Amino acid sequence: MDIRFLLDLALLLFTAKAFGILARGIGAPEVVGEIVAGLLVGPALLGLVQQTDFLAQMAEIGVIMLMFEAGLGTNLKELRRTGLKATLIACAGVFVPLALGTALYLGFYGAQILKGLFVGTIMSATSVSITVAALKEMGKLDGTVGTTIVSAAIIDDVIGIVVLTVVLSMSGGGGGDGMMTLLKIPLFFALALGSGVLVYRVFSWLDSRYTHTRRMPIVSLCYCFLMAWLAETWFGIADITGAYVAGVVLCNLSDAKYIERRVDISSYMVFAPLFFTGIGLKTSFAAMDLRLLAFSVCFVALSLLGKVGGCGLCARACGFRGNDTVKIGLGMMTRGEVALITAQKGLAAGLLTPEFFTPVILLILVSSIITPILLKRAYTKYPEGQ
Amino acid sequence: MDIRFLLDLALLLFTAKAFGILARGIGAPEVVGEIVAGLLVGPALLGLVQQTDFLAQMAEIGVIMLMFEAGLGTNLKELRRTGLKATLIACAGVFVPLALGTALYLGFYGAQILKGLFVGTIMSATSVSITVAALKEMGKLDGTVGTTIVSAAIIDDVIGIVVLTVVLSMSGGGGGDGMMTLLKIPLFFALALGSGVLVYRVFSWLDSRYTHTRRMPIVSLCYCFLMAWLAETWFGIADITGAYVAGVVLCNLSDAKYIERRVDISSYMVFAPLFFTGIGLKTSFAAMDLRLLAFSVCFVALSLLGKVGGCGLCARACGFRGNDTVKIGLGMMTRGEVALITAQKGLAAGLLTPEFFTPVILLILVSSIITPILLKRAYTKYPEGQ
Repeated sequence: MDIRFLLDLALLLFTAKAFGILARGIGAPEVVGEIVAGLLVGPALLGLVQQTDFLAQMAEIGVIMLMFEAGLGTNLKELRRTGLKATLIACAGVFVPLALGTALYLGFYGAQILKGLFVGTIMSATSVSITVAALKEMGKLDGTVGTTIVSAAIIDDVIGIVVLTVVLSMSGGGGGDGMMTLLKIPLFFALALGSGVLVYRVFSWLDSRYTHTRRMPIVSLCYCFLMAWLAETWFGIADITGAYVAGVVLCNLSDAKYIERRVDISSYMVFAPLFFTGIGLKTSFAAMDLRLLAFSVCFVALSLLGKVGGCGLCARACGFRGNDTVKIGLGMMTRGEVALITAQKGLAAGLLTPEFFTPVILLILVSSIITPILLKRAYTKYPEGQ
Repeated sequence: MDIRFLLDLALLLFTAKAFGILARGIGAPEVVGEIVAGLLVGPALLGLVQQTDFLAQMAEIGVIMLMFEAGLGTNLKELRRTGLKATLIACAGVFVPLALGTALYLGFYGAQILKGLFVGTIMSATSVSITVAALKEMGKLDGTVGTTIVSAAIIDDVIGIVVLTVVLSMSGGGGGDGMMTLLKIPLFFALALGSGVLVYRVFSWLDSRYTHTRRMPIVSLCYCFLMAWLAETWFGIADITGAYVAGVVLCNLSDAKYIERRVDISSYMVFAPLFFTGIGLKTSFAAMDLRLLAFSVCFVALSLLGKVGGCGLCARACGFRGNDTVKIGLGMMTRGEVALITAQKGLAAGLLTPEFFTPVILLILVSSIITPILLKRAYTKYPEGQ
């Protein structure tokens, strides 16, 4: 076995921690430092560490653990209370960027409505894992704003799949398959809810007999991995959504905090830093022509503004106060792998050419770096509810 | 990305925990249950999970963490006190199996002295990771017997490399290279010692400023990965030896227990079970002819008896009491990847044919299962020092 991965781990974990501490020193969230660390040691700058399958898989476990923890920390009452508002915010968060992205593409490359719609679809894909990490760092994950953001992002993921399926079917890429995908979504949530009641009972029973034993966090983590796998493989829903749902199922256990703590230690020791540095690792600045550069700048700007504007205004309409609407808008701004996966599907369907990956990666990088910084500033200046 | 590995993780971690609990229920050590779990879900029986690069890498991290923890838990005084005895025991543990293996091969396959020596070399390779896990489970790792076993195994690894190098040079497989390998061994330990003093000072300083902060275990783990990588890549010494040495360097830190605890949580949540199940996963029973079967049985029996007899008698000669000599002999009995790696080198040098991998894998499996059981029995019946 080639044990080069041990050196990669040492380099990534060390620089991630060092830059995380540095970032905190200048008042920015640690996760920003970790992303920058990946950018520095990765192919974009120093080239000390290359992206490998192993690192990508470790990063995936990192983001799954992060979302599982977010699920475990869920305040179910808060979730029920914010449910309707979150759904509305999610809709605004999908359709405003969708419209903006379509318009942008048509403006740059002329009347190709389907391709335009596809660029809009990419723009609409939220991945709140970075927001979750930033809120967690500040201890704001289970407040009203935090809960609204996370649940809106989950619903956003579902609506995103619906839009993607519709757009792909319009392009002729598998209509029957498309219908199946749409049918599978309610099926997943029905199954998760139905089995969730049973799973919760089994875990409660285990928990009453074996409080604070190792088996609780280990078996919970197995359930999380299983749900993540099921969601993506069988139902076409993002694995992180499955992990979050697994966390929500277990969030009322009396040992939920204990489980979360154990998962958190595994996560911050190895997996989470690999997820954050992984964002930097993926980035490489390919050669750009002027038009693509201009397009990229507009793409990134509109993607960010589309979410902030769409979600923020909708939150305002739902009765959130001024500064909380800004936080919700900012929180929904982050993009992640879901955007890349969507782009990949477009490439396969012939709706996208490879050079459009550059603006997507830029969007992921820029949003991952500025969202935590702006969120932290917003929370420092205006504590929740003001 | 294919996310099948999430399902593999869920299956392996769940069955490992379940069988671990079951094993403890019938009085056997948990690690035995975990190895059996791997055997059950792996290609040997149910075939639910196949060995993948990812799982092999995770398992490697698991064994590295295990040895790092063993290093961190080292009692330096005890190590110094047992050093000379451990060296003698290690020598006996290498040369007795070496002689037995050579004789066995010559008996079965006629006068091919070099091939015989090579089979002996494979027999002499100790991997005490399983013993370490079993001793840790019983809380006996830092006693006199535990320290003697671990340090003897480390020295055994070094002598093993010397023997392997000599045998390979005799077969004409790279004489100049062989000399280099022999030179590198003292170099590694000199470097580890020299840099260790510096590293220890830096960590002590860090520790005094940042006691009980996340950065301590993370940076320590980076140092461990780096040493593991350095040892194997630059010096041809097993990565687990590098990890153990890294642990020993840090074992006198005031935060050593804290670091060990954090690493332990990451380890038992994910990595260690993957190492133990990995042993079972690697096993598949290839078709055997009668001669190979007979050879395998003798090979396994002599390998185990060679270590128990060689190390046990030598320990007796060094002044250990009756029951402690049995424990030391049993503890040195386990074999692991080092035997497989040695076998691979023999294959490359033309000293071994592929069918001889079956007895080696059998030896790893059998020794990994019976050693912890016998050790536990020995410790239960005869507490240390009697």
